[in-house]
Amino acid sequence: MFIRNCWYVAAWDIEVPPDVFLNRILLNEPVLLYRDTQGRAVALENRCCHRAAPLHLGRKEGDCVRCMYHGLKFDPSGVCVEIPGQERIPDKVRVRNYPVVERDRLVWVWMGDPLLADPAQIVDYHWHDHPDWRMKPGYIHYQAGYEWVVDNLLDFTHLAWVHPNTLGTDSASGLKPTIERDTQGLGTLTISRWYVNDDMPALHKKVASFEGKVDRWQIYQWSPPALLRMDAGSAPTGTGAPEGHRAPNSVQFRHTSIQTPETETTCHYWFCQARNFDLDNEALTESIYDSVVVAFEEDRTMIEAQQKIVSLTPGRPMIPIWADSGLSQARWLIDRALQDEQTTNQAPTP
Amino acid sequence: MFIRNCWYVAAWDIEVPPDVFLNRILLNEPVLLYRDTQGRAVALENRCCHRAAPLHLGRKEGDCVRCMYHGLKFDPSGVCVEIPGQERIPDKVRVRNYPVVERDRLVWVWMGDPLLADPAQIVDYHWHDHPDWRMKPGYIHYQAGYEWVVDNLLDFTHLAWVHPNTLGTDSASGLKPTIERDTQGLGTLTISRWYVNDDMPALHKKVASFEGKVDRWQIYQWSPPALLRMDAGSAPTGTGAPEGHRAPNSVQFRHTSIQTPETETTCHYWFCQARNFDLDNEALTESIYDSVVVAFEEDRTMIEAQQKIVSLTPGRPMIPIWADSGLSQARWLIDRALQDEQTTNQAPTP
Amino acid sequence: MFIRNCWYVAAWDIEVPPDVFLNRILLNEPVLLYRDTQGRAVALENRCCHRAAPLHLGRKEGDCVRCMYHGLKFDPSGVCVEIPGQERIPDKVRVRNYPVVERDRLVWVWMGDPLLADPAQIVDYHWHDHPDWRMKPGYIHYQAGYEWVVDNLLDFTHLAWVHPNTLGTDSASGLKPTIERDTQGLGTLTISRWYVNDDMPALHKKVASFEGKVDRWQIYQWSPPALLRMDAGSAPTGTGAPEGHRAPNSVQFRHTSIQTPETETTCHYWFCQARNFDLDNEALTESIYDSVVVAFEEDRTMIEAQQKIVSLTPGRPMIPIWADSGLSQARWLIDRALQDEQTTNQAPTP
Repeated sequence: MFIRNCWYVAAWDIEVPPDVFLNRILLNEPVLLYRDTQGRAVALENRCCHRAAPLHLGRKEGDCVRCMYHGLKFDPSGVCVEIPGQERIPDKVRVRNYPVVERDRLVWVWMGDPLLADPAQIVDYHWHDHPDWRMKPGYIHYQAGYEWVVDNLLDFTHLAWVHPNTLGTDSASGLKPTIERDTQGLGTLTISRWYVNDDMPALHKKVASFEGKVDRWQIYQWSPPALLRMDAGSAPTGTGAPEGHRAPNSVQFRHTSIQTPETETTCHYWFCQARNFDLDNEALTESIYDSVVVAFEEDRTMIEAQQKIVSLTPGRPMIPIWADSGLSQARWLIDRALQDEQTTNQAPTP
Repeated sequence: MFIRNCWYVAAWDIEVPPDVFLNRILLNEPVLLYRDTQGRAVALENRCCHRAAPLHLGRKEGDCVRCMYHGLKFDPSGVCVEIPGQERIPDKVRVRNYPVVERDRLVWVWMGDPLLADPAQIVDYHWHDHPDWRMKPGYIHYQAGYEWVVDNLLDFTHLAWVHPNTLGTDSASGLKPTIERDTQGLGTLTISRWYVNDDMPALHKKVASFEGKVDRWQIYQWSPPALLRMDAGSAPTGTGAPEGHRAPNSVQFRHTSIQTPETETTCHYWFCQARNFDLDNEALTESIYDSVVVAFEEDRTMIEAQQKIVSLTPGRPMIPIWADSGLSQARWLIDRALQDEQTTNQAPTP
Repeated sequence: MFIRNCWYVAAWDIEVPPDVFLNRILLNEPVLLYRDTQGRAVALENRCCHRAAPLHLGRKEGDCVRCMYHGLKFDPSGVCVEIPGQERIPDKVRVRNYPVVERDRLVWVWMGDPLLADPAQIVDYHWHDHPDWRMKPGYIHYQAGYEWVVDNLLDFTHLAWVHPNTLGTDSASGLKPTIERDTQGLGTLTISRWYVNDDMPALHKKVASFEGKVDRWQIYQWSPPALLRMDAGSAPTGTGAPEGHRAPNSVQFRHTSIQTPETETTCHYWFCQARNFDLDNEALTESIYDSVVVAFEEDRTMIEAQQKIVSLTPGRPMIPIWADSGLSQARWLIDRALQDEQTTNQAPTP
């Protein structure tokens, strides 16, 4: 069971190049992604309403897609505009259209009731294409349900154990994070750690244009279904970082980790690590990307093995520990959203 | 659920050579095919009644097959004729025997109530071994349920889309076929197109021994469960082709397409394309065979992808169009046969 | 459904070397096997009670295993002794511990109610490490349920058919075995054949230190769930072998065949063939091992094919023959044990 009335990422922009069909399963549904003649992303059910042929084996004709089994042609709204050899096209001859918004280099789709699709609800990831930032987009396919990846991302304890030589080195600091929960909409968790008037971390020293004590921070923001944004950096102490002012010379990173369920036990995973300095240093861009991939492969080994155990022992309880507050609240928000959809029956039966 | 009381093809004759066991799953049942000492095909359940060992790992002894697990020996009727070390053989020690008829180079088996098996019901495919005809037999295994292949074969619309460079070129003609339904027995559909006093198609011109206007035809005959015969050709106009007379110099093809379910989502497919001219031209035989295979692979790509979508979206409706009259009637005949078997309960529980 | 309240073999001793985790599924449960600092084998559920991470991806620390996802540390009894960052450890933070006994080079585990685990019930296999005997341990993974392997081992009829060139040659003798059933505990079957004042078999002649007539025997002892011991040999006739005395110069073999279910349709299989002569002849040890493997591969081909047929035709009856008395009684003992556990509800729900 998946939350339906929310925006899901379906692809990076570059995963949907002009004139290519992207065939992707989202929430157990076959989805076709392509671009119209003006470059706008389109998402249709990848299943011709006539005989269930996959549209990704079809042909793009202008803004439309033609099924190459019997030639039915659908416009970007999913309406059938041509049935070869048949004059009248009944209204019901249409494939499902998913609302699409392309923003921050991400193609967002709405898998629920289209009437509820409000682009204003889409979470901000402006560092993906803002000129002050630089990143390289990444994608992983996971042989594990998205909720196990969510668990992992909202849990700092694992850093020392899964990533002793990568992310873990920096996280050994004992400062417990503050967790705030905003229950508006699907809800948001904000998990913050601030170190005021502290030493600059070695990693930041290498790239900073200033010296001396810093105020530094790690702020995670997470929203259902599986949208993580991380804001981390160092600013000269006393320049107002904790109050929300970011000095122009502060060293800043933004991290993106987003999952969309493929099936109950597999998911899509999009990520990147943006920075606000040395933007044109392509080697640095690659190096940051590579180090993220190394750490993510450490997670993947554990999480995919965990999924196997979970599948082998369904119904066995899990016992919480102190470190679960982040992931427990995330699971609580996911469950709340699922129950809300059950209750109000807003989720259309696909 | 499959129709049981009908003749199914189990193999081409050459798939059951002397002294070799053919192990094939038909309608979800394991079937053993072999030949007795007189070369007659035998079909038994490929499962020793003692401990379910597969008989295809056994040994042929004269007309019999001996299970090589514990040595039980069964005659071609399935009756156990020897239990090593045991004198009395109870009547119930037998494996299921399927009625078999070998005709037109095909091995036909009856998977239903043996008392109802009437060889007279077997559809005629005499061009497989008649001296006036020549063909090369073909077999494909399909990762799709047989009914999706049936759909494909009874639908001319797809020719232009799936086979634009192979079969499609010839079929662009707008003449709508006539569909006749004979409901006798399991029923027969006859789908015909006649072009009287027309130009000879390029393909026929190459091989015809005459010139001038022709009467030409494409006649499909289909019967449940999945038996297609196609009769196509050109005769000199005015020689009575539409009335049923085939002038000796007419250019004629017969096409065979037969499916038998293996499981709910896989099937066996036998095919050939026979001709009545230039019989000894082996290169032509190969060339015709190869061109059929090319076109069939185009179908297979679409149909196997369609099966995946169908499996992913069970219960989703399909919306008919005008071009479905052939396949709709075929599905109707299949459903009628299934319901008849449910009602009269003629189908033995295997 | 599996018998739970009994000792199962989990591994040969050498399959659990120091400092290595063995990850094995037993009775559909993930089990971790390792050794503590004193070399004692430990069996824990291979699933951290916190978030179901597999412990075999963890780290051995002294006698304990640390989960490398979030750092929980468990002692050999399964009790959590450390939760990094958390002072209090609730009692329920523990993973399941399986009673373990290492004996006769086998690691035995108890998958049922630990209170019922009595090491005295473990069947004797002393020839695995007794100085009078020599063997090489073997392991096979089977794509078939353990009960089909049991069938095979308790059935002499198949020797002539499955192993005509290996085991079968020696077994052609028509002497029917005596079957005795002891119903104490889970029960024991004893299947014996004695040939008194007989010729020595060729195989024994090659290695015997004496000549002349012999008393020879083949005695199988089998106990649920799947424990077979075979005692075979030749002694000079008149030295009291049938009465239980084994002359020191008698030629003796002991064979071990033990299965433990992995899943309903797969199992683990441990075997060896020990002898009491020419102990230091390593080439002979290898040669005996190799010949057993050849014969066992003959069985595996048949049994794995049988499992496929059984899975394809569930619910189809099997018809007994005279030769089934051994396997029928074994199945009866297994069914009795399963029913006993259902009735008394002694089996803990895992």
